Amino acid sequence: MLPYTDSLSLAAESLCATARWCYAQGWVPATSGNFSVRDREAGRVLITTSGLDKGTLTPDGLLEVDMEGGVLSGEGRPSAETALHLVLYRARAEAGAILHVHTVWNTLLSGIHAGAGHVELGGYELLKGLAGVTTHEHVERVPILKNSQEFAELSARFGDALRGFPEAHGVLLSRHGLYTWGESVAEARRHLEALEFLFEVEGRRQLGQP
Amino acid sequence: MLPYTDSLSLAAESLCATARWCYAQGWVPATSGNFSVRDREAGRVLITTSGLDKGTLTPDGLLEVDMEGGVLSGEGRPSAETALHLVLYRARAEAGAILHVHTVWNTLLSGIHAGAGHVELGGYELLKGLAGVTTHEHVERVPILKNSQEFAELSARFGDALRGFPEAHGVLLSRHGLYTWGESVAEARRHLEALEFLFEVEGRRQLGQP
Amino acid sequence: MLPYTDSLSLAAESLCATARWCYAQGWVPATSGNFSVRDREAGRVLITTSGLDKGTLTPDGLLEVDMEGGVLSGEGRPSAETALHLVLYRARAEAGAILHVHTVWNTLLSGIHAGAGHVELGGYELLKGLAGVTTHEHVERVPILKNSQEFAELSARFGDALRGFPEAHGVLLSRHGLYTWGESVAEARRHLEALEFLFEVEGRRQLGQP
Amino acid sequence: MLPYTDSLSLAAESLCATARWCYAQGWVPATSGNFSVRDREAGRVLITTSGLDKGTLTPDGLLEVDMEGGVLSGEGRPSAETALHLVLYRARAEAGAILHVHTVWNTLLSGIHAGAGHVELGGYELLKGLAGVTTHEHVERVPILKNSQEFAELSARFGDALRGFPEAHGVLLSRHGLYTWGESVAEARRHLEALEFLFEVEGRRQLGQP
Repeated sequence: MLPYTDSLSLAAESLCATARWCYAQGWVPATSGNFSVRDREAGRVLITTSGLDKGTLTPDGLLEVDMEGGVLSGEGRPSAETALHLVLYRARAEAGAILHVHTVWNTLLSGIHAGAGHVELGGYELLKGLAGVTTHEHVERVPILKNSQEFAELSARFGDALRGFPEAHGVLLSRHGLYTWGESVAEARRHLEALEFLFEVEGRRQLGQP
Repeated sequence: MLPYTDSLSLAAESLCATARWCYAQGWVPATSGNFSVRDREAGRVLITTSGLDKGTLTPDGLLEVDMEGGVLSGEGRPSAETALHLVLYRARAEAGAILHVHTVWNTLLSGIHAGAGHVELGGYELLKGLAGVTTHEHVERVPILKNSQEFAELSARFGDALRGFPEAHGVLLSRHGLYTWGESVAEARRHLEALEFLFEVEGRRQLGQP
Repeated sequence: MLPYTDSLSLAAESLCATARWCYAQGWVPATSGNFSVRDREAGRVLITTSGLDKGTLTPDGLLEVDMEGGVLSGEGRPSAETALHLVLYRARAEAGAILHVHTVWNTLLSGIHAGAGHVELGGYELLKGLAGVTTHEHVERVPILKNSQEFAELSARFGDALRGFPEAHGVLLSRHGLYTWGESVAEARRHLEALEFLFEVEGRRQLGQP
Repeated sequence: MLPYTDSLSLAAESLCATARWCYAQGWVPATSGNFSVRDREAGRVLITTSGLDKGTLTPDGLLEVDMEGGVLSGEGRPSAETALHLVLYRARAEAGAILHVHTVWNTLLSGIHAGAGHVELGGYELLKGLAGVTTHEHVERVPILKNSQEFAELSARFGDALRGFPEAHGVLLSRHGLYTWGESVAEARRHLEALEFLFEVEGRRQLGQP
């Protein structure tokens, strides 16, 4: 195993701070959610172990795995969703960090629009929080996958969705949660904050009676 | 009286930290709610005294009672709901900790479904936060009891519900609150976070107009 | 002027801690709200000065006034609503502390039911957070007064409401806010937490479509 | 460049504290929002640089610009919305601080009423949180502008709205956010808290079914 570089150590600290913040928002209840960063040079990923409370996460709660999911170092069991992280890193060359959260509004919205296969977010200034988006006139299409406990099958569909929606900044699993990513932890968190804000706005609008 | 073991002292600290966190969420307003841990070996329970503000709870606010509710040590009056905790510990051999909270969403949902006698939570990934549940396809049936101030009568119905819904991870009292439990304080809190998340999602969905 | 007794100093500290907590809940935005404690023996009241940010309130932000509202000590201008506090202390012999807050849910509910002149809260366990209430079968009737900037006229109606609803634990001003009180700051805060919880539950229920 | 006066340094600290508080409320997600103070004597403005996370803002994150938007000191790029701040300072002689936030409720309400060109807030006590408003019978008309990425054109319409609604304490950009201001940071924050409270009340009322 290679020792961590300073930038990888910093990314791990930043990832854990983001996970603790997500817990405080109520976005990873009941030990749900998982979080990772990629070390591109060394071809490895640091990812949360299964079943940890994210409210107190520190880098000790991260496992080092190779790009096939083999454990290189660290204690604990890799999450079953590690496979989805690796599919995502392969499908999105730019991704350096992945955040996966379960929120009330992404759960509601992914349920309402599950039949359509995606949800559209259009006309909002906050869309400019997504990398490469420069106008509120953008329409973001977030694919929604049917949830599954068969991770091989789900991984295949997850990869298909990433290729089928090449512009998307997130993927929803229906009544399950959101995957989003970024070049850095900071960018991934910016995407998370923008998408969850828009899910809440759209959720309140669609469930209300204006 | 037996001195506390180290693990019992730790459980008491963990229980109080969970109670303070519940207060910060607005889940035990107005000195409501109660919390306990069981010491199986010694056949005793530590439980919050009546009328305490949970926002500042420490182990000094816990009473030691035997399995019939007799006070072994500590100051203050046992809560009238102590009887329900003891019924629950008898009916659920695995339970090592019990959390009882009053939240906006469990109050609303237990009122809406009081007539049906239970509420169903199905199809959500967060169901996997409940011990033994391995798929979102699980349907959790949470029994709802008519509220009562007659604790002998209520205790009997509470025991019936626990036996009638042997798979349930919680019991609701209508327009009153939730009882949930776990082998440890950590597991009980995981169940609490999962159930309250699902109550909020279902409450928003059912009160809205999708 | 009499020096403060130890218990009055403690009550002032407790009042300010409660005010800061209310600010953190979003219940006294934009320097709104006011808070007081009564020193029965000395016939005086400590009350927040007009226009202070409650998020950083300390006892220096309290004025000492006599029972006619004359300033005994302290800097700043008494709030125009001081008159309502004094009417309330006269009408409720047991009151030792008064809390007045502007919340989203008390503003909404007091608007919806303004025509009826009161709002009913019935069937909830949390009603037992109100002094003297021992069952969820209690129906709490909270009077609602039309808002006014004529404080002499409003004070007269406020006194009428307190006499007309002798069992009430709070008074609402329509689309304005709640007055509640207690023997101590702790009891007043317990009443506040119970009433606001119930306003939110009823508000969500009545604005939704179950 | 002139050195900062003590009062300008204090205003900068206060502005950053307000920005951090806004982030904690979820009002400037995903590095959105911007904030400024004006130094009237020296004819300069301190304003947040583009793309900063507001949750950790300190005065190092502020740029010093002249009244035409030329950078006098500081690192980073001025936000594209700097032009709107300068238009506002010119149109409102009393303004010493400007806050621009993106909240769920201002996004929803500015979308619902975009067609009307303004939203009315009337009959609420909290209106008295706005400078010069002395009664709840006041009707506040907040203009709503169609959002645009053409800042020259948007600046012109922004100036028109400020002149067309001379009594307004805020301007909304549709599905984008709120601009509000005050003589000081404290007054601007008071206006922000009052307006956002009222947006939430009206938003919940209009989306519900009373």
